[in-house]
Amino acid sequence: MNQAAMKAAVLEKPLSIEVKQVGMPVLGPYDALVKVYCIGICGSDIHYYEHGKIGRYVVDKPIILGHELAGEVVQIGDQVRNVAVGDRVAVEPGVTCGRCTYCKSGRYNLCPDVVFMATPPDDGAWAEYVSVRSHFLFKLPDGMSYEEGALLEPLSVGFHAMNRGKVGPSDRLLIVGLGPIGLMAIQAAKLFGVTEIYASDVVPFRREYGLKLGATAVLNPLEGDFAKQLARLTGGAGIDVIIESSGNGRAIEDTVRLVNRGGRIVYIGLPTAERIPMDMNLLIDSELDVYGVFRYANTYPAAIQALKGSGIDLRQSITHRFSLDDIKMAVELARTQKDTSVKMMIYPDPQQLNNGGNS
Amino acid sequence: MNQAAMKAAVLEKPLSIEVKQVGMPVLGPYDALVKVYCIGICGSDIHYYEHGKIGRYVVDKPIILGHELAGEVVQIGDQVRNVAVGDRVAVEPGVTCGRCTYCKSGRYNLCPDVVFMATPPDDGAWAEYVSVRSHFLFKLPDGMSYEEGALLEPLSVGFHAMNRGKVGPSDRLLIVGLGPIGLMAIQAAKLFGVTEIYASDVVPFRREYGLKLGATAVLNPLEGDFAKQLARLTGGAGIDVIIESSGNGRAIEDTVRLVNRGGRIVYIGLPTAERIPMDMNLLIDSELDVYGVFRYANTYPAAIQALKGSGIDLRQSITHRFSLDDIKMAVELARTQKDTSVKMMIYPDPQQLNNGGNS
Amino acid sequence: MNQAAMKAAVLEKPLSIEVKQVGMPVLGPYDALVKVYCIGICGSDIHYYEHGKIGRYVVDKPIILGHELAGEVVQIGDQVRNVAVGDRVAVEPGVTCGRCTYCKSGRYNLCPDVVFMATPPDDGAWAEYVSVRSHFLFKLPDGMSYEEGALLEPLSVGFHAMNRGKVGPSDRLLIVGLGPIGLMAIQAAKLFGVTEIYASDVVPFRREYGLKLGATAVLNPLEGDFAKQLARLTGGAGIDVIIESSGNGRAIEDTVRLVNRGGRIVYIGLPTAERIPMDMNLLIDSELDVYGVFRYANTYPAAIQALKGSGIDLRQSITHRFSLDDIKMAVELARTQKDTSVKMMIYPDPQQLNNGGNS
Amino acid sequence: MNQAAMKAAVLEKPLSIEVKQVGMPVLGPYDALVKVYCIGICGSDIHYYEHGKIGRYVVDKPIILGHELAGEVVQIGDQVRNVAVGDRVAVEPGVTCGRCTYCKSGRYNLCPDVVFMATPPDDGAWAEYVSVRSHFLFKLPDGMSYEEGALLEPLSVGFHAMNRGKVGPSDRLLIVGLGPIGLMAIQAAKLFGVTEIYASDVVPFRREYGLKLGATAVLNPLEGDFAKQLARLTGGAGIDVIIESSGNGRAIEDTVRLVNRGGRIVYIGLPTAERIPMDMNLLIDSELDVYGVFRYANTYPAAIQALKGSGIDLRQSITHRFSLDDIKMAVELARTQKDTSVKMMIYPDPQQLNNGGNS
Repeated sequence: MNQAAMKAAVLEKPLSIEVKQVGMPVLGPYDALVKVYCIGICGSDIHYYEHGKIGRYVVDKPIILGHELAGEVVQIGDQVRNVAVGDRVAVEPGVTCGRCTYCKSGRYNLCPDVVFMATPPDDGAWAEYVSVRSHFLFKLPDGMSYEEGALLEPLSVGFHAMNRGKVGPSDRLLIVGLGPIGLMAIQAAKLFGVTEIYASDVVPFRREYGLKLGATAVLNPLEGDFAKQLARLTGGAGIDVIIESSGNGRAIEDTVRLVNRGGRIVYIGLPTAERIPMDMNLLIDSELDVYGVFRYANTYPAAIQALKGSGIDLRQSITHRFSLDDIKMAVELARTQKDTSVKMMIYPDPQQLNNGGNS
Repeated sequence: MNQAAMKAAVLEKPLSIEVKQVGMPVLGPYDALVKVYCIGICGSDIHYYEHGKIGRYVVDKPIILGHELAGEVVQIGDQVRNVAVGDRVAVEPGVTCGRCTYCKSGRYNLCPDVVFMATPPDDGAWAEYVSVRSHFLFKLPDGMSYEEGALLEPLSVGFHAMNRGKVGPSDRLLIVGLGPIGLMAIQAAKLFGVTEIYASDVVPFRREYGLKLGATAVLNPLEGDFAKQLARLTGGAGIDVIIESSGNGRAIEDTVRLVNRGGRIVYIGLPTAERIPMDMNLLIDSELDVYGVFRYANTYPAAIQALKGSGIDLRQSITHRFSLDDIKMAVELARTQKDTSVKMMIYPDPQQLNNGGNS
Repeated sequence: MNQAAMKAAVLEKPLSIEVKQVGMPVLGPYDALVKVYCIGICGSDIHYYEHGKIGRYVVDKPIILGHELAGEVVQIGDQVRNVAVGDRVAVEPGVTCGRCTYCKSGRYNLCPDVVFMATPPDDGAWAEYVSVRSHFLFKLPDGMSYEEGALLEPLSVGFHAMNRGKVGPSDRLLIVGLGPIGLMAIQAAKLFGVTEIYASDVVPFRREYGLKLGATAVLNPLEGDFAKQLARLTGGAGIDVIIESSGNGRAIEDTVRLVNRGGRIVYIGLPTAERIPMDMNLLIDSELDVYGVFRYANTYPAAIQALKGSGIDLRQSITHRFSLDDIKMAVELARTQKDTSVKMMIYPDPQQLNNGGNS
Repeated sequence: MNQAAMKAAVLEKPLSIEVKQVGMPVLGPYDALVKVYCIGICGSDIHYYEHGKIGRYVVDKPIILGHELAGEVVQIGDQVRNVAVGDRVAVEPGVTCGRCTYCKSGRYNLCPDVVFMATPPDDGAWAEYVSVRSHFLFKLPDGMSYEEGALLEPLSVGFHAMNRGKVGPSDRLLIVGLGPIGLMAIQAAKLFGVTEIYASDVVPFRREYGLKLGATAVLNPLEGDFAKQLARLTGGAGIDVIIESSGNGRAIEDTVRLVNRGGRIVYIGLPTAERIPMDMNLLIDSELDVYGVFRYANTYPAAIQALKGSGIDLRQSITHRFSLDDIKMAVELARTQKDTSVKMMIYPDPQQLNNGGNS
């Protein structure tokens, strides 16, 4: 069984992560074995690394993190039809039951029996290989790089937010918070044809990135009168849809007064406070539509199609690339330098790191 | 001009209401003059009567209240085509501009230039006659009484809530609060084919009315574990849609944990507190849809059609009938005996009062 | 393996059906074995019996027909969680892959890999037992009989048609064709709160049944001016939605001129002619919405919920009941006496036949 | 009243058009007088010019044609609030009643009382001035030229088709027919983020224009196997949505077999044949959605917003510009050289013609 081992980054306990040999994943008849080409670091990975838990999910045994990835199919189970050995694929990291009411009605992101990578107790893919139910693998079209394939994961959240908020090309949008999800939401909005995209963040570096990725204008919510600035920027037309990705309590509170009457708000960012004081009178009087977003469903093929020939390059949000061997350095940088980093990409194979972003 | 006078109930200042002669309404070319047959007392009427204002709307000059009415067309302007003298009609009490973006896109309830009866500074219809833009008049079909026509107004709020919440016959519903709006929401839910309608109120009298009007079961939210009771009643299936009509802060707060994952909440009742502490984490994690309701649009013809032959009698919610001459007694009773009254109906013509409910 | 045999009705070739012993169904880990209580005869069963094929589906080896059934769970695979031995269940007769784009997005009725009972080469359930993937089993609530459970299958087509046509309680409906599907569509429409349901058929017996099942009025399309009659019946309001279930070419052709401007048409009935001459100018000029219906998806739990306490009894459409031993007589009657029969129900267990409709 | 005259092109009878002095338009309190800057020639204008009628609309007295225009507000009625003298505006050419069910529910394009420019008996705007109900005027943002403003009219048809067909960025689209509407539909699809837009026409010149305006690939439906070519171009994924703008009978017939199962078809082009033989079996079996398009509603502000900063220049479809004095030459060219012309723009003021497209 010596040959059946691989390198993986294992979080033993908070702040303690180690790259070591672990057993190769087991392959079922509907599974494919994917050689991980590159895999991103998500805010949730960092949170588990620091605190050992997120809400009800607790790391109580060693776990492999990581769930934003693309790679190459190197082996398939005997029932697999949709991918073949050698295929370049993006990996959707949640495997759902396919049998519950949510799955059957198209909202499989709400499946109570989902197995989601890097959510305790399920392992993720900061590793050389990963086994995936094959219908959650999506072939990368020619011209789409592995890194873009990996970034389909955070993009999916933004894409799902556009679907949930029924966003169309005539909406004026405000994206609150410019972490990786907010930045991806800018790019998702562009894919949906939105031409007026405002964004806000308190960190100058992120505001710069917002502009770089295509925001019409970026604002510091701490400077001046936010509502007035939006009114001025939109020529008095105001904001039709808000995408809240910051999770900041005050920002969440402000949304209902920053959106137009009859407008829509999509909430993605989870606040740390248990309760946020909301102006429900205004929400009712303005007859708002409000949508929560939990992960995503049916976004991978849709986003691949929407990106094709769009001219949008998701890789713009990558600020750092590391070898899997340097994962400790990467996560430390990610957690301590949030103001100068956006998305970090990890390469299990050091040789592929040298090609980073080019294949 | 002596002949051009009519009797009306004028609120001079809080708690001071007087029945007196006022000028007859003026008729424009698109208007019809309606002889008021019966007109309800709404919670907002009582609130203006007691406090002289609701939020930003202030009674700073004498005003005629009342906006839930039906009557007979007695005169029409020369451009009126949709109704004729002698028609029995329900009156939709808001006249919108027909020109703004909201009006043109079908959400005319959000028209910023609406003139809405009994909302200061616009007069209502506690009077013998009222002039109405004719395309807000709807003929009552044979078999629909004037009282039902008047009750289309509060029913419209419930009907609009069903539309906003995309309610269908397979939804399990919870209606929170059994004032007139909540009770009407029960009847609206029945019109939409809902078979499992739970309702809650702290007042025993209202819970009884809830059952009488067709709720599957009614609960006292102050007794026992509300969530557990709902789980038991639904056989574990839970609640798909909540209609919140109480405006109670605690009730609003509870909604997000009482509804199923992927569920919908419709908020109608305006809370008195400026802010309600909401569990936004749960709203997001459960991927809820939340909808505010402000009045209604396009509900009158739809509700008339839905009621026709449905076997539902809106008049069940009428607990008292008064002559317009006794309006003072009626509003005093309405404001002091909320626990034993639901809907009160006012008759400007004492003779018609004797036929009450029968024509 | 003697004990592992059961009685089934096998169609050997057109017009030749034989009740004989066949092997018991094999049970996979996600399957449940259902003892068939009662099972309907569908038009497609008769068509296979007579012609040995429907379009591209050809009976080229012996097949067991029948797909409208309910029964009792008598054994479960080791991965089954949603039902238990002893449960009374309705059986949804198509098992889908759960992995394709259609399945994942909620339109599993379009799954290209569906295995659908009694569609060659897949066996149906005119038999004592059947093995079913358990997530296509739905528990019957107390008070819902096995026969109603079996009738959920044809009802599902009508229910899906209501969903596809976005039918609501204020729509005026015309149902064209009163075979079993059209009759079930009347009952589906009632579940959705529709109060004005017109229906048409050329057969007097079926028109009577239409009235019996709740149509507002029924028409003979061959008598008088159909459009004028509908205008008169609706007081000039016209028809908002047409459900076409007859498959008659002339009826299909007429739909676009019988529906209101901006209206909707749902086509269910498959015509025999390869092409129908359609007035596309009118379809475009009237800005119609047109929806095809192919089977159904997500309707079983929804219809069970909608029926609960609705007062609608699906069994009204059952005209005959037979023992499985008399299947030959039943299908002969069904194919030769279409004008005096609607739905026939087959009982594999003669004792249960005696309880027919009561449990 | 000598000063109250203006120049206009009057169609006296088929093929006979004359530029002459006519009375200035009369201004009501809600109207604005617009000095026409430029105005396009539409296929319907040419059809009236040649045949004197389109379907039920007959030119039985002299009429001014033209309805695709932009200009400057030079006078306003005393109730006008949304535009001011000096404003650069696009003109939506249909004035609706604002009172009927269609108007109130947001589908004002179906208003039975619409007054639509250049549809007999209502005059259009091939003239120096036109009076318009002001809420059908839309200010052009800085950077949007008058010509683009005029082209919002044909673009609106394409934009409305995208709305009707629920088109999003992940749809694979086929646009059939590349007349002005089909070409505008390509640009509308790009505004909605569609990345894979196939188009077809039998005329080489129009196929070239299709590519120029952004089609992914253009096909000649008369060459080779159309379905196979689409399968190859889409890598087997097929077409999700078809926009039929040709009105060609054979093209309409083909749509149902060229679209994917579960796909959508939007019909815009009116065929000359009264009936088209449609494969209704396939429409039903594939569970298609089919939508007719009649003009448009609520598209002007939406399209202006979607175009802003989109990088799409509608003027690419303009092939010729003429002075109003040369209108006869323009319409003759339009009707005889359909294979080398797309959109023609008419300028009432010869000086402005010299600035054509630049202001």
